[in-house]
Amino acid sequence: MSFNNLLSTIPPATRILEPLKVPSKLLMGPGPSNMRESIMDDVKAGLQYLFQTNNELTFAVSGSGHAGMECAVMNLLEPGETVLVVQTGIWGQRVADLVDRLGGRVQTLNVEAGKAATLEMFSKAMEDCKPAVVFVCQGESSTGVAQPLEDFGDVCHKNGTLLLVDAVASIGCVPLQMDALDIDCVYAATQKVLGAPPGLAMISFSERAVQKMRTRKTRVPSFYLDAFELANYWGCSNEPRRYHHTAPISLVYALREALSEIANEGLEQCLLRHRQCADFLYSKLEEIGLKPYVKEKSVRLPGLTTIELPPNVEFKLIIDKLMSQGIEISGGLGPTVGKVWRIGTFGVNADKEKILKTVHALDEALKTVHNKDV
Amino acid sequence: MSFNNLLSTIPPATRILEPLKVPSKLLMGPGPSNMRESIMDDVKAGLQYLFQTNNELTFAVSGSGHAGMECAVMNLLEPGETVLVVQTGIWGQRVADLVDRLGGRVQTLNVEAGKAATLEMFSKAMEDCKPAVVFVCQGESSTGVAQPLEDFGDVCHKNGTLLLVDAVASIGCVPLQMDALDIDCVYAATQKVLGAPPGLAMISFSERAVQKMRTRKTRVPSFYLDAFELANYWGCSNEPRRYHHTAPISLVYALREALSEIANEGLEQCLLRHRQCADFLYSKLEEIGLKPYVKEKSVRLPGLTTIELPPNVEFKLIIDKLMSQGIEISGGLGPTVGKVWRIGTFGVNADKEKILKTVHALDEALKTVHNKDV
Repeated sequence: MSFNNLLSTIPPATRILEPLKVPSKLLMGPGPSNMRESIMDDVKAGLQYLFQTNNELTFAVSGSGHAGMECAVMNLLEPGETVLVVQTGIWGQRVADLVDRLGGRVQTLNVEAGKAATLEMFSKAMEDCKPAVVFVCQGESSTGVAQPLEDFGDVCHKNGTLLLVDAVASIGCVPLQMDALDIDCVYAATQKVLGAPPGLAMISFSERAVQKMRTRKTRVPSFYLDAFELANYWGCSNEPRRYHHTAPISLVYALREALSEIANEGLEQCLLRHRQCADFLYSKLEEIGLKPYVKEKSVRLPGLTTIELPPNVEFKLIIDKLMSQGIEISGGLGPTVGKVWRIGTFGVNADKEKILKTVHALDEALKTVHNKDV
Repeated sequence: MSFNNLLSTIPPATRILEPLKVPSKLLMGPGPSNMRESIMDDVKAGLQYLFQTNNELTFAVSGSGHAGMECAVMNLLEPGETVLVVQTGIWGQRVADLVDRLGGRVQTLNVEAGKAATLEMFSKAMEDCKPAVVFVCQGESSTGVAQPLEDFGDVCHKNGTLLLVDAVASIGCVPLQMDALDIDCVYAATQKVLGAPPGLAMISFSERAVQKMRTRKTRVPSFYLDAFELANYWGCSNEPRRYHHTAPISLVYALREALSEIANEGLEQCLLRHRQCADFLYSKLEEIGLKPYVKEKSVRLPGLTTIELPPNVEFKLIIDKLMSQGIEISGGLGPTVGKVWRIGTFGVNADKEKILKTVHALDEALKTVHNKDV
């Protein structure tokens, strides 16, 4: 992870740095209150800062992170077109399944679990299949890998391909400058680094993506996830806003506050804190004889550390022991099932005291198990 | 609205009558905590009571009411099939648009705004087009009409058609006994009578619907809204549960509480309270010289009253006057734009004091305007 490009070139707007004012009224309307437009504008401004983009089509989707993925793929892809999936874990598998459901074709670049794709591998795969869209997961939460994205945009655009990036587990803990990296669509979720409740996806489309969406031959197979309908609802254009759906207002308020917190902390500081806490976690794990699953340190995801299971330890037993003390860690997912523990240090959990407590509990649990083995 | 069939034949399970216990833990996992399965089971039990159904496929969709509509249509319909839309307001228009996006064919039964479709009109339309699916909105919030559904199921099933009902604005204020009425799919939302935050849709599929879904020739064009994937996640079958998406946990807890409240109040009592408050509102409106837009009293939606605009009154001005006192009422929507005010009396707003306060404010606002006119 290089930190030489951490400086935000897009500063947070003043509106997202300020405290929120919530009006009180008796809602005798036919449904919930319309959201104050200013809250939605705050969220858009906060997202542009978070993604480091000036894209107009930047808004929240009323669903979980996976709804963000569906919104991206449904709008960028038409039936019959090809998507190149950089397959580093389960999120690529999800996209491949979705593309198949939508009548698209899937090509995969298979990457060994625990490693990142290299630019060379990627360029070669692009030459072979000339896809309409490329999918890359920046923070692969099943393996704990952070995929570097430098120059991926260039390779895509030389081939007339759109670059789609999943930043659910990476946004706020791995640098992502959407405009500088020339990414065409990014989506993320609220419940990782931002620490807001799950239920909203955050998404942004580049002008290049918008051009492709404008010239579609087929309709987007969802109204709920139609990017132009959502963009109108979120006031991303100059058209008058139309009612689109009833947004999960409590989640929108929570997201606004989470975006305000990260803008006030500063993206650089937030990235640095996650980086330092990850390094702290690696050193503490080493002290108790545990090793990260991802060997190449530079591609480890700071917010999510996968840990190699030591020999002869029933991983589930250790998870249960920690849970009985009120600490939740997790086993593997997809390609890492039965191979790792996963410890998340997202948002407020990127905190040395919490990490110490967790590693200490893990150490104690392992000792109990080892003593029993003797 | 007949009240002779109000008795719940399906009682609430004990689990949804009891208070909720929320555990406290340090979430050092790679994402949010898995939901306790018991919370999800509570919600399912609460929904089966709310919908008066024993359907196994009864669960929440992680999106607003409109996501419930998309989940229903995407799973029930295949490209090339026909949907008969009973067009009583904007929700039918929405479904028609969605069917077109999904490659289906739309037939409409156009009903005059402010009226309900009769069984005769419906039977005739069914004979003409033999659709795969029929869409009916039970609570049309744009016009304030409650569509009777008696015998609609019979007519559908004689023709091999599935009956899909939108109960977003009607559930809890109009009797809906899904099994007794032989409905194949119902969806609703959390933010009307239930008074929970928006962001979850509630849905149930009949065995007949499940049979059709099992024999689909094409895949559902969404993984997020795939009913069988959701059913697995919600533990509706005996299969082990798989991770599907990150549910909006704060909304699921809130829904669990709202379902517990309605189970403790009792569906009959809740329906009666909405009925009585609507009658109270009609009488108070009459006292100040205002008339309901829906002439036939038996098809008025108790939770949402549309009011004819008196002559020479700028409706927006009145809405603004009320809003300046912190009371939100609304103008028309779709076919009623510029023709009505809409007053919602859902959930805790089905309360005579709140209704009095609102009608009083409306009366005062109208007097000010009339005085100015003189």
